[in-house]
Amino acid sequence: MHIIDKLAQRIERVNNPTVMGLDTQVSHLPKEFSALHRTPAQGILAYNRALLEGLADIVPCVKVQIAYYEMLGLEGMEAFSKTLKMAREMGYVVIADAKRNDIGATATAYAAAFFEKGADFECDILTVNGYLGRDGIEPFTKYAPEKGIFVLCRTSNPSAGDLQDTGGDEQDYARMGRLVAGMDGKVGDLATAPQRVYERMGCLIEDWGKDTVGERGYSAVGAVVGATWPEQSVALRKAHPSTFFLVPGYGAQGGTAKDLAGCFDAKGGGAVVNASRSLLAAWQKQDTDDFVSAARREALDMQKALREATT
Amino acid sequence: MHIIDKLAQRIERVNNPTVMGLDTQVSHLPKEFSALHRTPAQGILAYNRALLEGLADIVPCVKVQIAYYEMLGLEGMEAFSKTLKMAREMGYVVIADAKRNDIGATATAYAAAFFEKGADFECDILTVNGYLGRDGIEPFTKYAPEKGIFVLCRTSNPSAGDLQDTGGDEQDYARMGRLVAGMDGKVGDLATAPQRVYERMGCLIEDWGKDTVGERGYSAVGAVVGATWPEQSVALRKAHPSTFFLVPGYGAQGGTAKDLAGCFDAKGGGAVVNASRSLLAAWQKQDTDDFVSAARREALDMQKALREATT
Repeated sequence: MHIIDKLAQRIERVNNPTVMGLDTQVSHLPKEFSALHRTPAQGILAYNRALLEGLADIVPCVKVQIAYYEMLGLEGMEAFSKTLKMAREMGYVVIADAKRNDIGATATAYAAAFFEKGADFECDILTVNGYLGRDGIEPFTKYAPEKGIFVLCRTSNPSAGDLQDTGGDEQDYARMGRLVAGMDGKVGDLATAPQRVYERMGCLIEDWGKDTVGERGYSAVGAVVGATWPEQSVALRKAHPSTFFLVPGYGAQGGTAKDLAGCFDAKGGGAVVNASRSLLAAWQKQDTDDFVSAARREALDMQKALREATT
Repeated sequence: MHIIDKLAQRIERVNNPTVMGLDTQVSHLPKEFSALHRTPAQGILAYNRALLEGLADIVPCVKVQIAYYEMLGLEGMEAFSKTLKMAREMGYVVIADAKRNDIGATATAYAAAFFEKGADFECDILTVNGYLGRDGIEPFTKYAPEKGIFVLCRTSNPSAGDLQDTGGDEQDYARMGRLVAGMDGKVGDLATAPQRVYERMGCLIEDWGKDTVGERGYSAVGAVVGATWPEQSVALRKAHPSTFFLVPGYGAQGGTAKDLAGCFDAKGGGAVVNASRSLLAAWQKQDTDDFVSAARREALDMQKALREATT
């Protein structure tokens, strides 16, 4: 099944475009819970299991950030593998957040690592960095539409603009929005138009995905568009109607439901919104050790805020 | 010790700026050798060990590409960890080629994974993708100058230009070379000048490294500049005299010693050149099963070609 169709279906079933970000660190765990486990990696795995079991009926998708597992070495990588496997078995759509990028031959190895059936790190969708252009992308899209990628476009962090905002100017910015709309998605024609880097990346992403559009009208090559940049996300949404967005930066990073509303289409589809720290450590804010119930309350609050802002 | 000073010292000792790229796959191993080992990962680890032991007196540095280990799952990651450890114990400067990139908090986790003393994946230098800007870089430069990063600037692959060549025009290109030379490295002033993406990245890389320049005049924040783009590497070398280059694309990818000569400074320093397939599978071209001797011959040929072209 087309992975974005599957994701959209799951989102509709629970009426919630929330992604639970399992960027789990020991500091997120109640001390009493940590003490039950022999190693940090085992504690984190048990914590993930409890959250995955506890939120499966209200959250459609999880994103597992590999960095927090890699920092625990080989044992962490085992917890990463087991977390992906558990989540897939429970029916979540599973995003591995690894932002992989390399030349074609090496990208082929990465694609095998994350997309081959039964691989230790098999996931449904992988985040990818498109700096190397098309031949770093095609090894992944060979697995489409059953597997998908989200390519970094406009990231959520404060220094996103250091590279991503260069090129173009205010007038180009406005013109580009018109150009794309007017040209009915003829991305190739835009190649020589002056654009900012993230706008150019948006066009490349659309182009890389154009042969993988599913029943819902979205391709298997999505874009990462930060919740923290309302103006840019509105322009990108308008310019690329067949590109699904993964939206990080909600909650702890400062993005609000109102800020990211422009990432969604007119029907409230076309995007998923990730929250990591605000769900993982919800118990700390709610003054309880029952971290699963706290995360559920936070996820339901988030659902409500997102649905009010986007439908 | 400053990691680039250490690398330069090792290069001078063996008079060879060659990096052995351990992108090892089962297909590189003689069948008889593979048959001695229970699993692909064990075969690859033994192959790496033999090459590391056999070339330590003529090659100063190795680059281990994580993708080829990740594709073998958890067992592959163990072989990756052991390869890094072996190589560091034998005195090689060890580059982990993982092209990591993320927002600040997550980059901090990556930096711990690759730079913390005794970590399973500890290396000397990590390749990094700078698409997210400064706050994705600073967590790594906190470990400088004992640890270093090489940031993707102009990659060696055919589609490198899809994003990296956009922005600017031919005149800007020429002007940019002059501007940098004339401004004595005042990178900040260039922020608003029209530039291509890879030129802008070159300026950012110089800026990110400017407080970490060592005794040899090079910072701990280097750039990846492909051997396959002679014109661009000459311009980048001239524009950024304090940026050390990691040069991939030699040999199997088509870059020649003459193509990449412009990456070096006037004294034949300032760059290391990676070769992976041409060393790993040298025995196949030389019609022998003695893969260590074959790799030695190839590395010595490469040394000769590089030294003739760059000094």
